[in-house]
Amino acid sequence: MKHAVLIALGDELLSGIRREGNCSWLAGRLTRAGWRVDCMEILPDGKDSLPKYLENRVGTTDLLVLSGGLGPTHDDCTREALSSFLKVPLETADEAYDKVIARYPAEMRHLLEKCRDTQGTVPRGTRAVHNPEGSALGIAFEFSGTKVFAFPGVPSEYRAMAEQELASEISPLTNGTASVLVAGWPESLLKDRIAPVISRQELHISILPSPGLVEIFLRGNPADVVRGEDDIRLLVPGDCLPSGARSLEEAVIKGAAQRGLTSACAESCTGGLVGAALTTVPGSSAVFFGSAVCYSNSAKKSILSVSESTLNHFGAVSSQCAAEMAEGALRIFGTDLAVSVTGIAGPEGGSAGKPVGTVWFGIAGKGRTEAVKRLFHGDRDGIRNRASMFALLCLWRKVSEPEK
Amino acid sequence: MKHAVLIALGDELLSGIRREGNCSWLAGRLTRAGWRVDCMEILPDGKDSLPKYLENRVGTTDLLVLSGGLGPTHDDCTREALSSFLKVPLETADEAYDKVIARYPAEMRHLLEKCRDTQGTVPRGTRAVHNPEGSALGIAFEFSGTKVFAFPGVPSEYRAMAEQELASEISPLTNGTASVLVAGWPESLLKDRIAPVISRQELHISILPSPGLVEIFLRGNPADVVRGEDDIRLLVPGDCLPSGARSLEEAVIKGAAQRGLTSACAESCTGGLVGAALTTVPGSSAVFFGSAVCYSNSAKKSILSVSESTLNHFGAVSSQCAAEMAEGALRIFGTDLAVSVTGIAGPEGGSAGKPVGTVWFGIAGKGRTEAVKRLFHGDRDGIRNRASMFALLCLWRKVSEPEK
Repeated sequence: MKHAVLIALGDELLSGIRREGNCSWLAGRLTRAGWRVDCMEILPDGKDSLPKYLENRVGTTDLLVLSGGLGPTHDDCTREALSSFLKVPLETADEAYDKVIARYPAEMRHLLEKCRDTQGTVPRGTRAVHNPEGSALGIAFEFSGTKVFAFPGVPSEYRAMAEQELASEISPLTNGTASVLVAGWPESLLKDRIAPVISRQELHISILPSPGLVEIFLRGNPADVVRGEDDIRLLVPGDCLPSGARSLEEAVIKGAAQRGLTSACAESCTGGLVGAALTTVPGSSAVFFGSAVCYSNSAKKSILSVSESTLNHFGAVSSQCAAEMAEGALRIFGTDLAVSVTGIAGPEGGSAGKPVGTVWFGIAGKGRTEAVKRLFHGDRDGIRNRASMFALLCLWRKVSEPEK
Repeated sequence: MKHAVLIALGDELLSGIRREGNCSWLAGRLTRAGWRVDCMEILPDGKDSLPKYLENRVGTTDLLVLSGGLGPTHDDCTREALSSFLKVPLETADEAYDKVIARYPAEMRHLLEKCRDTQGTVPRGTRAVHNPEGSALGIAFEFSGTKVFAFPGVPSEYRAMAEQELASEISPLTNGTASVLVAGWPESLLKDRIAPVISRQELHISILPSPGLVEIFLRGNPADVVRGEDDIRLLVPGDCLPSGARSLEEAVIKGAAQRGLTSACAESCTGGLVGAALTTVPGSSAVFFGSAVCYSNSAKKSILSVSESTLNHFGAVSSQCAAEMAEGALRIFGTDLAVSVTGIAGPEGGSAGKPVGTVWFGIAGKGRTEAVKRLFHGDRDGIRNRASMFALLCLWRKVSEPEK
């Protein structure tokens, strides 16, 4: 197994203003390609700490990738740090920088020309890496058996350059790995259920939970992996996403498209999260018509036709209201299916009978309407996110249930 | 200035499945309290690497906080690593663990009792830290001038324990710091505009951009900071969020509440992101009534009464459609203001006249309707997020415009 170390530079990361995402993204790609990431480190801007850090790290790992510090301002010190580490001067990489400038409109080129002496330079003897998304060059070299890359920290540039330079390293292993996504199971119960597969010596299995979804990642001999995946799908019937779907929303949209079903939502406490999730999927417009986010009771009445008496007798957080909301969405959007969410996300609004975290879901379509209640824990954001995942799960189960 | 080092442990972070958030959160709190975070590091589970790492770090910084590895399973090795680093055995912290168990219902206590020998232990001579959110104890000690804390990696537990143990360290400096949030300015233009303040020797100014919003963080002598903040607000009139609001959505909700204005949205390409953002604010239900997410043209017609001829002649991504959507939302929700978003988020659907990234916004209320177009760059997620931020900006400007 090959080993990697990923480093991000930036005071904005250390001051908590921006959350690191480049290393995390590349780590995901490397892991799926069979690599092991030994550590990720976030270091400050400035050239003081980096050369010493590189002395300790270069030579101990197969791959070291730096993110950030390649722009034209005085904070950007990655190339100076690499030049000091390699004990060679910086030189203009004219050919590579010309290629970058050529991508820009004529009126911007004189501005970029001014930065040739900074973001157009690389340490002597290293390779300048083309930037297809921005203007700062990247840097690549090998030292003591470690391949070192430095890419700009702008996420689109970092990703494009990593895809371009590390294509063969990060293409997912297709032989000898498999990933099964299981919806609606807590990690601990799922572990018990698939214990017979986990215990197989010939398989290396990672359980990777995320809200509402658990990923089971298998590695091993290709035949063992295929058998392992098949057995997991047998042990958790109906709850494994189809292979190819990387999220619940993708499973909903693809499943609906396959079966020719259209869908819609009615949301209260999730405020639009369910619609936002479904519309992350490119092409969702073919099967997802919309979401009526009715936060106020008046909107529930006027838009979704929830009855006055339901709101008076049972309240907005009730099975009756959830059912009427789902039916209302089905009717106003004219879809085959609709899911609704109405609950108490807090911090205010809870009571003894309906504590914060109480959420009712309605699911309407195929001639039936059902309602189901869940009690979620956590803060306002946590409850809203869990409720949104559960609404997607309801919709996915309805989309994928066998036709009668 | 005091210095801190933040460490997170977890294979799920190094495999890119989960994005680190605890260190990032604490870094934000420490920065606002006047600390400097020197580095953040993500290390694997398992006890091999941590003791050596601690030997290098403890004694070189004022504060070192570890996240994760305190649960009851074999992956959880933080307490063994600390015990090995301190060269002392682990001991049960009965009093502290009893206090944790007492928080749980009777039927769960025997399960927690089983874990007393793991998550109820701390290295001899260290202090057990109460966990108000979960069941694993934290650990605190001081060594060679470094305060060391270990908290569980579950975000709600980490945050609660950090708030509890580090209350005095992370309370924001009120004297000698200020933060001004500016909406709708690109970082580079804003820097030019406030250059007279940036150049003042007596102020330390950080510019912290995030999508749609730039934070200007000032530190220095209290009188200089007050003058700096006042001058920035003068230089960027109308675009600084009121002090106290930490986000555009919070500014919208608070501004609307102050002025007694209700609002609603009509969303197409953002799919619910605008509603979801507004409803993150506790208490938003008093002034935000809902969002009609009308992704399909049929929903735009039937729910928002966008006219057939508008869709036929101008298309869904047009000033006419944006205006009719905003007016439709105003009417169906019965609010004072409404904002609409309709655009092409890609990757499909662009054309020469309306490339991917073209988004029209409508804003209706106070007897007028306006429409404005923006062209955003980036991928589908990026375009949707920028469009959502811009819709909030439109709404905030409308909420805060002087009454005539």
